[in-house]
Order: sequence, then structure tokens, then C-alpha cells
Amino acid sequence: MQSLYFEDFQEGMELETVGRTVTEADIVMFAALTGDWNPIHVDAEYAKTTIFGQRIAHGTLTFSIMTGLLMRLGFLEETVVAFYGVDRLRFTNPVFIGDTIKARAKVVEKQDRGQFGVVKIEASVVKQTGDVVLNCILRVAVKKKG
Amino acid sequence: MQSLYFEDFQEGMELETVGRTVTEADIVMFAALTGDWNPIHVDAEYAKTTIFGQRIAHGTLTFSIMTGLLMRLGFLEETVVAFYGVDRLRFTNPVFIGDTIKARAKVVEKQDRGQFGVVKIEASVVKQTGDVVLNCILRVAVKKKG
Repeated sequence: MQSLYFEDFQEGMELETVGRTVTEADIVMFAALTGDWNPIHVDAEYAKTTIFGQRIAHGTLTFSIMTGLLMRLGFLEETVVAFYGVDRLRFTNPVFIGDTIKARAKVVEKQDRGQFGVVKIEASVVKQTGDVVLNCILRVAVKKKG
Repeated sequence: MQSLYFEDFQEGMELETVGRTVTEADIVMFAALTGDWNPIHVDAEYAKTTIFGQRIAHGTLTFSIMTGLLMRLGFLEETVVAFYGVDRLRFTNPVFIGDTIKARAKVVEKQDRGQFGVVKIEASVVKQTGDVVLNCILRVAVKKKG
């Protein structure tokens, strides 16, 4: 998919990514990178005692993977000015080791800001069971063709 | 800092983390882990042409490091039930390679939900210049002592 400029975005436009299986390695690497070693993510024995019954992916990992999956579509290569905000981000279901997730996005609003434009996107992450694990609204500043 | 249960949180309670210098390695590792290789983060020559003039950290990386810094305070070890939401997340200034960031958090609301409680936290990330690079509201479900 080629890069999209502000003018190329249309309200109602929908995108869906490929899937990705969230692995134990992803969780360990993310803990190492961020410093978030909370036992709910990395202690299998402790995790058995939680409401989830097993280790869960960091919500921030799922969110980060979502942005990675969306960026892999290529539509913001060299056209994104800044990813500047997120609203109403909710982690609605746990992501377990071995779950496969994909991201969906829908353009819901365009705002012309003069030198650039802002695209408001409703995004969600769904796993193989059909359960939505995350939803949010993304605000991205995008270059104009002019 | 020891784990805090819902009853231990007080409105107005403030936390500040140690600092952390965001390195080129952090950005490369985050790109590798998430798949977000947007040139604004990893192409030094392209980045010279952007409004930032150089590569910037992924917003999701700064956000993830913030949660890591906060978790390192230890107050949610084995007491967090779920980190379930974020509101009004804004990336207000760029984080460049070599910038040193720290997180600040303030408890602004407590909600008793019966079996557990929800703590609403205003969080921000500040860099060495004093500029706020990120702010948001976190919603965390926390165990009760009972």
C-alpha cells in the first residue's frame, strides 16, 4: 500500500492488517526494553493466582504491536508528520501467550490544519476468538500534497 | 516502595520516577519488536527533512517506557488486577536520541468497584529541558486488602 497524503484519506476508509501471534519472547523482550517486569506478565506461577490464570501481555505491548501492524501497511511512510494523540484507549480482554491478533482501523474524521491535516482513526485489535482486546481513537498529523 | 492496595492509595498522592536516557538502541529495538520501522524513527537522512530535523522516538515507545518507569517504583507488584484504560494521551514534544526522561504521576480519583478498586492517575513524562513530552490519564484496577 503506498503512502497516503491528507487528501488521499477518506472518511469511512477501512484498513485491516495481517495477523501476528504474540509470543512469550515478545513479552520477555518488552519487559526487558521497558523495565516493566510486573509478575502478571512474567511470573507464570504468580499469574496462576490472578483472575487471568496465566501470564498476560502488557497492554502497552498490545498497543505497540497494533501501531506496528498498522505501520506495516505502508500508508504513512514519509507522509506522517506526527502521531500526536490517543483517546479512550481500553484494554477490553487479555492477550495470552499464543494469541494471534490483528488490527482494524477506520478513518472517522479529517481536519484541515493549514500546513498539514489531522486524521482521526478508530482502531481496534481483535484476536483469533473474535474478542476485541483493545480499542481506541488515534490522532495522526499527515502531510498535504500541496 | 512496597506494593499498594486500593486502600493505600490517597487522592493527591504523587510519585516521581528515576530518569532514563532514551538511546538509539531503544528505538531500534522497539522498531524490531513492533514492526514500526517508519523512517521518522529509523532513517537519519529522511528525518533531517522533517519538522523535527532528526529521528524521534516512537510515541508508543515513550509511553511504554513511562509505564516501565512507573512499574519500577514497585507499588503495583502483585496488587495490580489490570491496567485497563488510558484517556487523553498526548505526545506534546518530541523525544530525541539522548534525551533523558522521567515520569510523574498523581492519584486523582479512587472508585470502589466492590471486589476491587479503580485508581485514576494523571501521568506525564518530562525531559531534561523541562519540556513535557507526554501526558495522559491512566486507569488501573487494584486489589483490595479485604
